[in-house]
Amino acid sequence: MSNSTAGIIIIGDEILSGRTKDTNSNFIANELVKVGIKLEKIVIVPDQEKIIIENVKEFKKSYSYVFTTGGIGPTHDDITAECMSKAFNKKLILNKTAHNLLKNYYKKTKIILNESRLKMAYLPASSKLIKNSVSAAPGFKIKNVWVMAGVPKIMQAMFLEDIEPRLSLRKKIFSKSIKVFKPEGDIAKFLGNLQNSFKSVEIGSYPFYTPPDIGTTVIFTSLENKNIINSTKVLCKFLTEANIQFLR
Amino acid sequence: MSNSTAGIIIIGDEILSGRTKDTNSNFIANELVKVGIKLEKIVIVPDQEKIIIENVKEFKKSYSYVFTTGGIGPTHDDITAECMSKAFNKKLILNKTAHNLLKNYYKKTKIILNESRLKMAYLPASSKLIKNSVSAAPGFKIKNVWVMAGVPKIMQAMFLEDIEPRLSLRKKIFSKSIKVFKPEGDIAKFLGNLQNSFKSVEIGSYPFYTPPDIGTTVIFTSLENKNIINSTKVLCKFLTEANIQFLR
Repeated sequence: MSNSTAGIIIIGDEILSGRTKDTNSNFIANELVKVGIKLEKIVIVPDQEKIIIENVKEFKKSYSYVFTTGGIGPTHDDITAECMSKAFNKKLILNKTAHNLLKNYYKKTKIILNESRLKMAYLPASSKLIKNSVSAAPGFKIKNVWVMAGVPKIMQAMFLEDIEPRLSLRKKIFSKSIKVFKPEGDIAKFLGNLQNSFKSVEIGSYPFYTPPDIGTTVIFTSLENKNIINSTKVLCKFLTEANIQFLR
Repeated sequence: MSNSTAGIIIIGDEILSGRTKDTNSNFIANELVKVGIKLEKIVIVPDQEKIIIENVKEFKKSYSYVFTTGGIGPTHDDITAECMSKAFNKKLILNKTAHNLLKNYYKKTKIILNESRLKMAYLPASSKLIKNSVSAAPGFKIKNVWVMAGVPKIMQAMFLEDIEPRLSLRKKIFSKSIKVFKPEGDIAKFLGNLQNSFKSVEIGSYPFYTPPDIGTTVIFTSLENKNIINSTKVLCKFLTEANIQFLR
């Protein structure tokens, strides 16, 4: 529907073991809608070099924008920068700006910029930094891949402060949802026909099941608001005539 | 680490648009740990035939178990059964048991088993049903792929009532976490050395950042509990001697 597409790669064993709930992908998904970029795939992978590199290689050629979170800290299981350098065939080098950021930050604290922390300033050659106000450790951008921290507060700061302002606003995506208090099966045939009549609208149907409320949320998405207005009008007319309760 | 591996495919535009938070993958992840199956990858894909089939084909050959959620309802955007039949090269046929389940269920209600609802009984040939007490519509299993509903309450009922009892318990995975009240950078070198000394333990390091609490959760995972006991003992000794606060 939109020309600008995105994929998200969430890196971290802690998500796959169920210990940590991934909230990063939902945050990014919501922000991407605002700037008109269509998210096409999310993948959650372990802290393993081979699988990270494979996915980065596939995603960077498949989507206009790729966002990754996790694995850019100072410990042995933080291997994202190294994987990116291999996926892009670039050397991993000490980035001077990142080094200075870390030096200045730790100067103000009692914390020592030791060998482990210095690792965070080693980035693939030709990377651009992604700054944030929460932590000294920068994320980085290489080609179309934006590499962010895994800690949600830091990731969100990177995205809102430094990434979103750099994503030029694409064509806005319009959407509208209608909550229908009937199970999907009662309106499925009508919705199928409606989708056939309005090819430029994506009509999604999502059952909700929170007794006593049982029904279907119908979501209309389009690049043209007039298509949304016209297609929802047809649905509302049908529901009114069939005496089916709904909320718009 | 474990011989039994799993992959999860979450199907649904509503997750990628950010409207709905995926809670299914975290639920399944936690249940898999209990039965000793190692989750290796989660992917979230849109309601699009080509991408669903691609991912099913890749996952079914890569993992011992594949779990999917979403897209098995009665509407036009519910295409999971059809995609499975194509991915496995099986015909989509009316499953008699599923048909009877639906007939008996709707007989007791005022709801009509119309053409749209009947669609839910069309499954790939040779599928086995996955029943649940919440909804009449069954999920199904084809080879190593378990196909579940997207609505969390229904998915959870399918998993707990009919899937988990059929997953034979694999070798248990042991794990232990220690909360260290120091940033990762202070213990990174020690953790790297510890990982080198204990090859049969996976040592993961996860920063937490909820000021005033800033620190690192260290997670030990192994197939042998004695390895966990030995390696955590070494960490605790180090932390005590370095006067670093921790919770075990």
